[in-house]
Amino acid sequence: MPQYHAPLIDMQFLLHDWLNISKHYQALGLEDFDAELVNEILNQGAKFAQEAIAPLNREGDEQSCHLVDGKVTTPHGFASAYHEYIANGWNAMLGSADYDGQDLPNSMAVPVHEMLNSANLSWRLVCMLTESAVLAVNKHGDDKLKRTYLAKLISGEWTGTMCLTEPHAGTDLSLLSSKAEPNTDGSYSISGSKIFISGGDQDWTDNICHLVLARLPDAPAGVKGISLFLVPKILPKADGSLGEANAVSVGSIEKKMGIKACPTCVMNFDGARGWLVGDENRGLACMFTMMNEARFQVGLQGLGIAEASYQGALSYARERLQSRAPQGVAEPAKKADSIMFQPDVRKMLLTQKALTEGCRALAYLYAQQMDIEKYGDTEQAHEAAKVIAFLTPICKGFMTDIGTDVSSLGIQIFGGHGYIREWGMEQLMRDSRIAQLYEGTNGIQAADLISRKLARDNGLMLAATHKMLEKLVADIQLPASLEFAQNILDDWFSTSKLITTLDPSDLAGAAYDYMHYSAYSILGILWLSMADSAQHSNFASIKSGKANTCAFYLKRLLPRREGFKANLFSGAEDLLTPADNEFDYQ
Amino acid sequence: MPQYHAPLIDMQFLLHDWLNISKHYQALGLEDFDAELVNEILNQGAKFAQEAIAPLNREGDEQSCHLVDGKVTTPHGFASAYHEYIANGWNAMLGSADYDGQDLPNSMAVPVHEMLNSANLSWRLVCMLTESAVLAVNKHGDDKLKRTYLAKLISGEWTGTMCLTEPHAGTDLSLLSSKAEPNTDGSYSISGSKIFISGGDQDWTDNICHLVLARLPDAPAGVKGISLFLVPKILPKADGSLGEANAVSVGSIEKKMGIKACPTCVMNFDGARGWLVGDENRGLACMFTMMNEARFQVGLQGLGIAEASYQGALSYARERLQSRAPQGVAEPAKKADSIMFQPDVRKMLLTQKALTEGCRALAYLYAQQMDIEKYGDTEQAHEAAKVIAFLTPICKGFMTDIGTDVSSLGIQIFGGHGYIREWGMEQLMRDSRIAQLYEGTNGIQAADLISRKLARDNGLMLAATHKMLEKLVADIQLPASLEFAQNILDDWFSTSKLITTLDPSDLAGAAYDYMHYSAYSILGILWLSMADSAQHSNFASIKSGKANTCAFYLKRLLPRREGFKANLFSGAEDLLTPADNEFDYQ
Repeated sequence: MPQYHAPLIDMQFLLHDWLNISKHYQALGLEDFDAELVNEILNQGAKFAQEAIAPLNREGDEQSCHLVDGKVTTPHGFASAYHEYIANGWNAMLGSADYDGQDLPNSMAVPVHEMLNSANLSWRLVCMLTESAVLAVNKHGDDKLKRTYLAKLISGEWTGTMCLTEPHAGTDLSLLSSKAEPNTDGSYSISGSKIFISGGDQDWTDNICHLVLARLPDAPAGVKGISLFLVPKILPKADGSLGEANAVSVGSIEKKMGIKACPTCVMNFDGARGWLVGDENRGLACMFTMMNEARFQVGLQGLGIAEASYQGALSYARERLQSRAPQGVAEPAKKADSIMFQPDVRKMLLTQKALTEGCRALAYLYAQQMDIEKYGDTEQAHEAAKVIAFLTPICKGFMTDIGTDVSSLGIQIFGGHGYIREWGMEQLMRDSRIAQLYEGTNGIQAADLISRKLARDNGLMLAATHKMLEKLVADIQLPASLEFAQNILDDWFSTSKLITTLDPSDLAGAAYDYMHYSAYSILGILWLSMADSAQHSNFASIKSGKANTCAFYLKRLLPRREGFKANLFSGAEDLLTPADNEFDYQ
Repeated sequence: MPQYHAPLIDMQFLLHDWLNISKHYQALGLEDFDAELVNEILNQGAKFAQEAIAPLNREGDEQSCHLVDGKVTTPHGFASAYHEYIANGWNAMLGSADYDGQDLPNSMAVPVHEMLNSANLSWRLVCMLTESAVLAVNKHGDDKLKRTYLAKLISGEWTGTMCLTEPHAGTDLSLLSSKAEPNTDGSYSISGSKIFISGGDQDWTDNICHLVLARLPDAPAGVKGISLFLVPKILPKADGSLGEANAVSVGSIEKKMGIKACPTCVMNFDGARGWLVGDENRGLACMFTMMNEARFQVGLQGLGIAEASYQGALSYARERLQSRAPQGVAEPAKKADSIMFQPDVRKMLLTQKALTEGCRALAYLYAQQMDIEKYGDTEQAHEAAKVIAFLTPICKGFMTDIGTDVSSLGIQIFGGHGYIREWGMEQLMRDSRIAQLYEGTNGIQAADLISRKLARDNGLMLAATHKMLEKLVADIQLPASLEFAQNILDDWFSTSKLITTLDPSDLAGAAYDYMHYSAYSILGILWLSMADSAQHSNFASIKSGKANTCAFYLKRLLPRREGFKANLFSGAEDLLTPADNEFDYQ
């Protein structure tokens, strides 16, 4: 497996040159944070990702997880890497200082999360779910719940899970049937079976906090009758030490296409004791608290995998000698030219690069908005929240589609060797494929974008996103680039506004195309903006590299936008017309 | 895993209604073959594929192949299914009657091959390679070689392999280093190591015939110094019975992303005895004899997987109840509507269907051309050979890309369950992914199409293909469809002719886009032609189903052609310009 190196130069370019992160922290009154600290965190994060968890990735896939006597074992080295991770405080990056967290801005943590995804997605996934649990308990838990669980979840002494899906309730949580019966002591007895639970059990920590959706007796039908509960694997005693085991067990470990080193479990709750998080019957709303964050984090998985695949393909292309370049012999001293000189291979590499770096720009811009939502004044926070709501399904849906496409190109550049597990390239594609499915399939993201985010609330989320992008465009200095970016923005904004007039089935038919049309448009703007700032960079390769990759993106990838745009207004009739028996000629 | 059913109604529609196969046989003087026999073979082939090998597919992936004491074991049931296959004569379908083959037209065998690919690609692969070996020995072997090996390969008593690739010689066979030293008895001693050898060893038959590329002493460097040898696993005695083991051994079994039930071996030849096939130093030419056939067969693997994935997704979509349809409640008596009513799911299903049935039409049209090449008069055969040469890289490259795209959609329709191995949908994607890589990567197919097939020989292969398609267009009865098809054809033909003027590096830069531009154009013509013939069908669902799917293809998929066309003439400069250090900012 090619060794992973965190793309520090690009990360630093984005944070310092493009986003001007020090100034951004100053504007938010975050005086403890500056460029130096950013670089320190990037460097240390890179060291941990490269040295501690990347080396476990390939072997972890082969070993996978096992269920022995009801307990899960994870691959060799995973637990000790986790102990190093929490000892060094990485788990606490985003946690509240009230519970011993570091309260770092998201713009500092997100690049590290990206690195962890590149290095070892299976390993990262368990930590990511703890972060989601922290958000839920922090926002909706009562004081006692916080006192008991929050510091331990933030430090990483305990991990967290999200127990939502049931065999017949995935996209449609209204169908879920897990039950919660109130006990006399204020706790509840939770019963039901949940599937696809990442980190449902592990051999890393003494306790696991499951956040479980279930129905109270006499709760209304549908999603308005769902409540959220915290159900610990081991019941803590009053003094916080571990007591008896709760009635929570692992039914089985799912056998999956990829992320095999992540223990994805079927979890059984048999009258397990749990505590309400938030209000009764408001579980779905509590869950949505962490939805933006979790969906963005899944998008970041697509980015992480794309970067890892690009790095592998690039180093292979440079080394693999095969045939001569069609434009003329490139390396006469060698038996053949490296395939790096083949135009078709370069096209694949530049496609990987332009999409990966474009997604990184989108992700860091999103992280900057998260900072503003967290630390800005009320109006700023309100505006940022709208931008985040709008961009979340795009980040999740587009970046994970890109993760799979880019990792497939990585295999292709390797030729037959890409299919052999030892090289690690096919694992990246298998690992990536899950990200298009969980936290809401990408079809659900597209529906969320077009129906909830675009068409509702009089287009306020669209307007806020447009305003943010408009500012980015206005800062472009080269007039031709500014004009190009303005055209992309205008085309996208006017098209988006028109879409809000469609009826529900036409919206549903246009959803996926709209998500991709928007993403390719936004990436076009980001590329023009990046290439423009790169002209002031001291790195010669950043200056010319961003300019040339931007040109490649505009010429070869931006036109895909047209394909997605073509059918936005042609309705869903052709989708709905075919009779059932036309599908298989029965 | 959803049960596979051969799509007999579509197959029969294509062969009888669309291609008018009885008339085609009559025109070629093939009096023994008629519609009734076609149906008999389709029905029996379906029975075998569905009952004998499809049930082994899922478990075969889990068991995979193992190397124990130098011998390969394949998954449970694989060997006995093979024995049933050869006992029923399936292996001999295309073999020469001189060696007890059935000499069936390709148009009869190809639908059965498609079924086998849908049912169990790993299993099929070993048989497919025997067919390639038969072609090579039949065309280039001397009489003694034929007498010794051909009947046994055709009956399937022995299998065959193709030993081409070495660790440092894949795409570029000029780099291969295996050696062949002449012995005094007319045989040769072959030494070297080969990788990625499908069916390199198995527990199905007593003997295996390896076709091995190697260099004679003092052979010219490069591809003009490569010879082809037949190297049996067990040396046959003069009477044809099995004698001593040859110096051929399995180094290891490759651990792969998919086709895990196919024993893909590293093969070591340590002075193994072999016999020359064809002339000295003409090994590459001999190999190219079977290249069209083998590449087409790999394309057919993409089709087979696409069909299997579509079937799985369709049956799941009909059963999975989740949410309500945005156009209004569809199944009020149920807790939720089946996802079959979701416009976005229908779009995915129709995409799968339109691409799969379009590729099937292309494959069967190609098979018809193979019949003409084999049985037609000299001029007909010559023309058909040109069409075949042109369409081969399109069939291989496009149909295998579609195999992966369609099987990825199949996973997506399943949501999270698509990622779980038990359902079989993710296996289809993993199995499909190899077909884009072997028998020449799809990048190599694209280069072959644009450089060898299109630009060479004064465009004669293009002209022959255009003529064949023109005839198909002229037969369209509905004037609007005829005009639409003619426009697609004219656009493609004029664009193709212009491309021949490009220089080598611009050709290389445009290759992949040209392959897809051509494929989407040709499928557009085939869809209009199919939908037109379907209007005379007695099956109501064929009539409306082909019309509606054609409309879907023209509206939603044909426009992709524009994206591929956009950059055909913009040169490779943007691909060649970026300096090496711009790729990773070193």
